[in-house]
Amino acid sequence: MQLTPMRAEEVRASFARQGSMRLIGARMVELGYGACAIELPFSAALGQQEGFFHGGIIGAVADSAGGYAAMSMLPAGVEVVTLEYKINFLRPAIGSRLLARGIVLRAGRRVVVTRCDVVAGDGDGLKLCAALQQSVARSTTGG
Amino acid sequence: MQLTPMRAEEVRASFARQGSMRLIGARMVELGYGACAIELPFSAALGQQEGFFHGGIIGAVADSAGGYAAMSMLPAGVEVVTLEYKINFLRPAIGSRLLARGIVLRAGRRVVVTRCDVVAGDGDGLKLCAALQQSVARSTTGG
Amino acid sequence: MQLTPMRAEEVRASFARQGSMRLIGARMVELGYGACAIELPFSAALGQQEGFFHGGIIGAVADSAGGYAAMSMLPAGVEVVTLEYKINFLRPAIGSRLLARGIVLRAGRRVVVTRCDVVAGDGDGLKLCAALQQSVARSTTGG
Amino acid sequence: MQLTPMRAEEVRASFARQGSMRLIGARMVELGYGACAIELPFSAALGQQEGFFHGGIIGAVADSAGGYAAMSMLPAGVEVVTLEYKINFLRPAIGSRLLARGIVLRAGRRVVVTRCDVVAGDGDGLKLCAALQQSVARSTTGG
Repeated sequence: MQLTPMRAEEVRASFARQGSMRLIGARMVELGYGACAIELPFSAALGQQEGFFHGGIIGAVADSAGGYAAMSMLPAGVEVVTLEYKINFLRPAIGSRLLARGIVLRAGRRVVVTRCDVVAGDGDGLKLCAALQQSVARSTTGG
Repeated sequence: MQLTPMRAEEVRASFARQGSMRLIGARMVELGYGACAIELPFSAALGQQEGFFHGGIIGAVADSAGGYAAMSMLPAGVEVVTLEYKINFLRPAIGSRLLARGIVLRAGRRVVVTRCDVVAGDGDGLKLCAALQQSVARSTTGG
Repeated sequence: MQLTPMRAEEVRASFARQGSMRLIGARMVELGYGACAIELPFSAALGQQEGFFHGGIIGAVADSAGGYAAMSMLPAGVEVVTLEYKINFLRPAIGSRLLARGIVLRAGRRVVVTRCDVVAGDGDGLKLCAALQQSVARSTTGG
Repeated sequence: MQLTPMRAEEVRASFARQGSMRLIGARMVELGYGACAIELPFSAALGQQEGFFHGGIIGAVADSAGGYAAMSMLPAGVEVVTLEYKINFLRPAIGSRLLARGIVLRAGRRVVVTRCDVVAGDGDGLKLCAALQQSVARSTTGG
């Protein structure tokens, strides 16, 4: 199985419609069959009270990366909805950019389970700063 | 035990410094000893791909409500940092506003555990749309 | 909506077939529509390395209480399967008995979300020692 | 850094004292610096209502594997206590044995975060059936 160009287009179009991702400046930088990476440059508007990336924003980006990794494995026309996620914060996310890499652990008939690792830093010196585990389902309101 | 005016001031000042909460238009509407509510009006910029409040944003607001509920029970000068949270999405969060109510389950010496219920809707017709369970710790970098 | 005697019988019969609950001596002590409580008496065989109820056993009992609370709201003949759960341990679970009380937050078409509070102690002096949040689905292999 | 023979001995002794692991027949089959695997042979007594390994038992074994992976990285004399864990069940755990492999993602000063993959099956044909993400802390009551 692999990601068709048509399905890749659908995933990217869905991401582009997400107002909250656009609002914070997140970009989808990688997309494969069961894998997706989203990058977020630091901006002062996103800084938490002590100057790092805010945990809630990290969660939002990691949730998106996992969700689009899941969507990439589903049939054409199907959107996804997050059932739940859990995120552990491992160290402060400091630096000029943050990268969330989502992968699919298991694409079941009803539920797709993913993990997402979030790294942050400057240049290539990125450190693991958060780890997410998530379930998504096919959206019943979407396509 | 109760929330002193001075500590309430510290909690509100910490919230006011959070760029991401300001960016999305969230307001702290209630604060007590071990309890905090944050309200978010719907804005088109926050809409997810199908027009609802986006799950990641709901997580960010719920994380803040739980974290400030925890902070309210800690001594003067102490900030908090989220160790982890888990959120289940129960139904689509549709409506003109969203309200996240965090409460403390247990304030231990090292870790404070909270829950947060998130409701959304119009006027007083708010429905439970997400449930969060979270751990926070005293920040070692903060005040 | 309420729990019919026939459905209550199915739930109790399902619990009775669970070898692991029988092995540890757990009993279902309450069952309602969307609510279930399971009690576990302390036994030396269950003690963790320092003499308390073991966290993994607490998780297993809380998972069951949440799962049967969910099952109570589903139609006759339907079994449940846990999709995921998350548990926070709030204080050591010490005492002669442990009680896990599961309730349903939302019974959706595809997923039922529950919470479970676990208390432990002696006599009526029970303290909250763990909190669980869980998703279950209808089992596709069950009756 | 590596696991000293003395620390390995402490970890194995702690596991041996866990009544619940002995009760279900679990064995520690691998131990390294930041890694631990626990194996559980199927027994009828552990079967859930439909004949598979029970989810709660899978959670208990995965919690132990993660916890001992964490303990292996801490100084001599230090025990661990689980703060929280979250587990997703990916497919039914069917077969003659189950293997839970815990690894440390981050050993912080206050909290150690781990993941654990649980596989089950017969012979070498083991399939991923559950995924856990966990926080543990140094026990304040232990050694």
